[in-house]
Amino acid sequence: LEDRVMKKQIITISREFGSGGHLVGKVLAEKMDVPYYDKSILDRIAEEKGYSVEMMEEDEKRAKNSFLYSLTTAFGSAGTGPDYISINEKFFLAQFDYIRRIAKEGSCVIVGRCADYVLRDMPFVTNVFIYADKQQKFKRIVNEYGLSREDAEKGLRDVDKARANYYKYHTGQEWGRPENYHLCINSSNISLGGCTDIIMKYQEIKTK
Amino acid sequence: LEDRVMKKQIITISREFGSGGHLVGKVLAEKMDVPYYDKSILDRIAEEKGYSVEMMEEDEKRAKNSFLYSLTTAFGSAGTGPDYISINEKFFLAQFDYIRRIAKEGSCVIVGRCADYVLRDMPFVTNVFIYADKQQKFKRIVNEYGLSREDAEKGLRDVDKARANYYKYHTGQEWGRPENYHLCINSSNISLGGCTDIIMKYQEIKTK
Repeated sequence: LEDRVMKKQIITISREFGSGGHLVGKVLAEKMDVPYYDKSILDRIAEEKGYSVEMMEEDEKRAKNSFLYSLTTAFGSAGTGPDYISINEKFFLAQFDYIRRIAKEGSCVIVGRCADYVLRDMPFVTNVFIYADKQQKFKRIVNEYGLSREDAEKGLRDVDKARANYYKYHTGQEWGRPENYHLCINSSNISLGGCTDIIMKYQEIKTK
Repeated sequence: LEDRVMKKQIITISREFGSGGHLVGKVLAEKMDVPYYDKSILDRIAEEKGYSVEMMEEDEKRAKNSFLYSLTTAFGSAGTGPDYISINEKFFLAQFDYIRRIAKEGSCVIVGRCADYVLRDMPFVTNVFIYADKQQKFKRIVNEYGLSREDAEKGLRDVDKARANYYKYHTGQEWGRPENYHLCINSSNISLGGCTDIIMKYQEIKTK
């Protein structure tokens, strides 16, 4: 048991808008008693640490031979030459680097931010995708996120499209395809606590 | 407990070639102590019962207003008029109808045959997709299915493409997309017994 407790476990959560996946990540981190990270936390840390600025040159040097770099220069720099990297892209690269550092430190749960791709080669990482039936997502967006029915419709139409574009842009992969994840859970017929139980069952089996 | 045991549970398994999903279905049926069905068993039953012939007219009548019917006539009947349905297609429709009958009878596990789509509106049905990393699939195909390396490569290239086409043809849906399933499990880092344990955990939560 001691041995299992000691083993590093990192869970990344990707999720459809309205699936409840964000909350699954939070509850999971609490149950596992490990740090929790998402976009707003990672953005704040980056700013507090001046990380995004400090790391840029270093990142840029390392990034020049990487897929991410060729992607950012290929898609993000029309007319500015192959060596140009925008501030936004530098920030993303810095954040990716910070995610890798977090993952080296110890167990945690990370929601979003292409963390599944960033950490794809680390054997102690489990990538989870949480999704749900459209009707269930709509219900959750209206009842729990408090959006109007119109904004919920708009959100269902636009948010995941933006996530898929962001993911494609930074990883070259298709967001929401099973091959990017170890486990994909439809949250529609089970509670969010049920989702965390299934993830922990997977971890128990994987680390056995 | 009595109540939970009594509840009907039907699991459909779709799987990538080489993922071990077929065996997951068999082991799951044993663990749940329920009947197991797959293509070869369903084909044999259909032939033994003369089912495919007997049911054709009835199916055809009911099918005329269905999506499956419009699909089969649209894609399968060039030059033969809108009322034509090939013997092959009649056999598939009869098999689909037989799957619905099986599902009405009681708990079971069904591998393949678009069973997820055929039973999609039944609340006691759980649709599972088993997949794996390419390298893992290759290894299993060579070591456990006993294929040559060349045939394994060929199988990886062709078998799932054929399954996707078959599925698309009969359901109009994309095979292997999370939205068609309740649970997608990458079998690469866990044993096949681990996969069945996760499915049973999902069932435990769903029927609680």
